[in-house]
Amino acid sequence: MAAPQSDLLVVSAEPFNAETRLERQVGLVTPVPRHYVRDHFGLPAPPDRLEVDGLVERPVALTLAELRAMPARSLFVTLECAGNGRSYLEPPVPGEQWGIGAVGTAEWTGVPLAAVMERAGVSPEATEVRFTGADRGTVAGREIVFERSLPVGEALHGDALLAYAMNGEDLTAHHGAPLRLVVPGWYGVASVKWLARITAIATPFGGYFQAERYVIEGAPLRRVEPRAVITSPSDGARIAPGAVMVRGYAWTGRSVLEAVEVSSDAGATWSDATLGRGISPYAWRAWEFAWRPAAPGDHALLARARDADGAQPAAARWNALGYANNASRPVRVSIA
Amino acid sequence: MAAPQSDLLVVSAEPFNAETRLERQVGLVTPVPRHYVRDHFGLPAPPDRLEVDGLVERPVALTLAELRAMPARSLFVTLECAGNGRSYLEPPVPGEQWGIGAVGTAEWTGVPLAAVMERAGVSPEATEVRFTGADRGTVAGREIVFERSLPVGEALHGDALLAYAMNGEDLTAHHGAPLRLVVPGWYGVASVKWLARITAIATPFGGYFQAERYVIEGAPLRRVEPRAVITSPSDGARIAPGAVMVRGYAWTGRSVLEAVEVSSDAGATWSDATLGRGISPYAWRAWEFAWRPAAPGDHALLARARDADGAQPAAARWNALGYANNASRPVRVSIA
Repeated sequence: MAAPQSDLLVVSAEPFNAETRLERQVGLVTPVPRHYVRDHFGLPAPPDRLEVDGLVERPVALTLAELRAMPARSLFVTLECAGNGRSYLEPPVPGEQWGIGAVGTAEWTGVPLAAVMERAGVSPEATEVRFTGADRGTVAGREIVFERSLPVGEALHGDALLAYAMNGEDLTAHHGAPLRLVVPGWYGVASVKWLARITAIATPFGGYFQAERYVIEGAPLRRVEPRAVITSPSDGARIAPGAVMVRGYAWTGRSVLEAVEVSSDAGATWSDATLGRGISPYAWRAWEFAWRPAAPGDHALLARARDADGAQPAAARWNALGYANNASRPVRVSIA
Repeated sequence: MAAPQSDLLVVSAEPFNAETRLERQVGLVTPVPRHYVRDHFGLPAPPDRLEVDGLVERPVALTLAELRAMPARSLFVTLECAGNGRSYLEPPVPGEQWGIGAVGTAEWTGVPLAAVMERAGVSPEATEVRFTGADRGTVAGREIVFERSLPVGEALHGDALLAYAMNGEDLTAHHGAPLRLVVPGWYGVASVKWLARITAIATPFGGYFQAERYVIEGAPLRRVEPRAVITSPSDGARIAPGAVMVRGYAWTGRSVLEAVEVSSDAGATWSDATLGRGISPYAWRAWEFAWRPAAPGDHALLARARDADGAQPAAARWNALGYANNASRPVRVSIA
């Protein structure tokens, strides 16, 4: 199924990077043609099997057919690019200039990563597990392979999937066909596409996308910071006086989403929104809030997500590469 | 998005009736091209608006744009055709010869029916609400319009949706574009496609699809009977000795699904399967059971769903038009 580009806002054509139009999202599942895509290089030739090696007792090579024959698991997972919201940073930073649509939710199906690691038997001296995609290219004169790592505990005991299906259908090329990693709760960079190799290693991985990109102050990005987005009303909307239903989605990867709050006075006071049903610990939830504007005129609405570790911040935490900007974005509305 | 016919098993080409290949279902959401389709006549011209009339205080006509501007709700709903399983009845009965794949689960989005009924203001003397589709045709020389009714309480207080989206995208023609009713928990016939008119009425509706079809012993079919299906192993599979993971889906519309049980001794003894996460009170749940065959040779596996009102039956309750055949279907496997 081809993804008509009109379903997405293209941030760069080659490599393909495109965000969803959040205002068109209905329900919780993002259709594949509308799910954001983050490619680092051009589309690679799809790997014909998955190799598992390094510090393991039994190196294995698995074809897609062999993986499909293993017990499968399905999970609804919200993936978000670490660069989501980058374009709003001041002063501007280099990198893909994402608005706020580098996020989407799909039902991913595959083999639990833990089951494959168990089959290979990870040696006690392993501390990390490295994932190698088939995608590669040249960055500033260096040949770079797309690789990221997970702590061994996350690989052995987490909910990561080796996914071959998205919303019930085979993966498409831009989502990593035939096989990708999906690491629930982590920024999308961890969910290595076109997965070719898994290697258990003894020392912290220091590859380009682990140590030079997707880092803040030298630390590799891991879990998704909390964020609430307002999808309705739209920014700049003119609305008749009366109650206004404010709606959106909220998610967090670092702990459990506890609340979404809405402010119409620049964050001086906040009111709880109503959260919709949670379909997975790793998927966004819809929320709504009946706002009754105090007076006609111009207003700005803010929403913030709160999880067990705290609330989404009002101000961006600027960093040189522009990651994890989860500052609340004001939506301006005019009541008249 | 066209539905490649290879994704479905076509039961009749004109009108189009096709079932899903349950063994290809992964995860909980059925992709639109793989969701079963039950058309009673050819595809009609899509209605350009929804009329609400009859015993209401304020007859209204709503365009799709007006409906989309109302507060939306999304629900994961398993729809099943009342004729699902008909082909297994003995002696055979007329009608579409469905196997067991006239079932599917989608995330439906639309306006709560109750909100539209409230806008129109249903008069106290109304006892039912009739739904008229744009589809019509000739049955045995009579011109028949597709119409079904709901009790007024169900229409005013139930979770029915006037749905314009399925799995996050606009409805396709065969799923009732631009607008269909979706009645969670009821056999699919209640979920009138190509919805053109809603009429509050004082006496029980006696139309063709209410009184002459979709009835058992004269009573209109309503809520879905419980059913568990085995999707793996497949019927006729040859399996090596050792533990066999048995998997499938289970649902009920009449109350709450409580358990799925598996038998390998023709129903003499039953063991509880493990139920997967529920994403909605109206959606099927995945289940699995680790079966350890006692001996090599031929076996037959049975699964049954149990809800608050009882268990799925072992034997079909034969009826002249072949509805609601939810008898457990044996899956034969050979251990060698």
